[in-house]
Amino acid sequence: MDMVVPPIGEVDLGQVFRALADPLRRAVVVELAADASDGERACSSFPMPVAKSTKTHHWRALREAGLIVQRDAGNGTFVRLRRAEFEQQFPGLLATLTALTR
Amino acid sequence: MDMVVPPIGEVDLGQVFRALADPLRRAVVVELAADASDGERACSSFPMPVAKSTKTHHWRALREAGLIVQRDAGNGTFVRLRRAEFEQQFPGLLATLTALTR
Repeated sequence: MDMVVPPIGEVDLGQVFRALADPLRRAVVVELAADASDGERACSSFPMPVAKSTKTHHWRALREAGLIVQRDAGNGTFVRLRRAEFEQQFPGLLATLTALTR
Repeated sequence: MDMVVPPIGEVDLGQVFRALADPLRRAVVVELAADASDGERACSSFPMPVAKSTKTHHWRALREAGLIVQRDAGNGTFVRLRRAEFEQQFPGLLATLTALTR
């Protein structure tokens, strides 16, 4: 089941920058953005050496910033980049982020 | 007298995003970036409807993110964008920010 995300038009640039300010969250976005096929990935496949509650917080911050969608499959949670909508709302930001974290 | 700023190489992208997450700070940067002459401006010329201590905090966040330099002239504080150095460290970010806040 897909988890709730805000309509992309309601996402504020401040939220996006707050989400990207954290290095673990930034690494997730850069890694997802590098996969041009926009495939779905298990959330557990991202290294996050933090407590479960902190992980939950990180994923929520990314959802609320319009950067990802998540699907709870019962046996795990899966994530993909919300690339097209995000790019429409914040053109160029993903490309700049990717270039800056190379 | 110029106020202390970090060497640009010590500025982390997370700090930059944290600084730009705030709408007042973002507005200052966008306004400074729009002036291609990189002229110095009185800090008081930026509308900041907040307490003095909050203003101080905002200016410090921008300094520590490598975005500005400030000069205390006794009769006021002046600011300019640290454009060349910032652009060298974070290429494309100012242009993307400007485009996104149009």
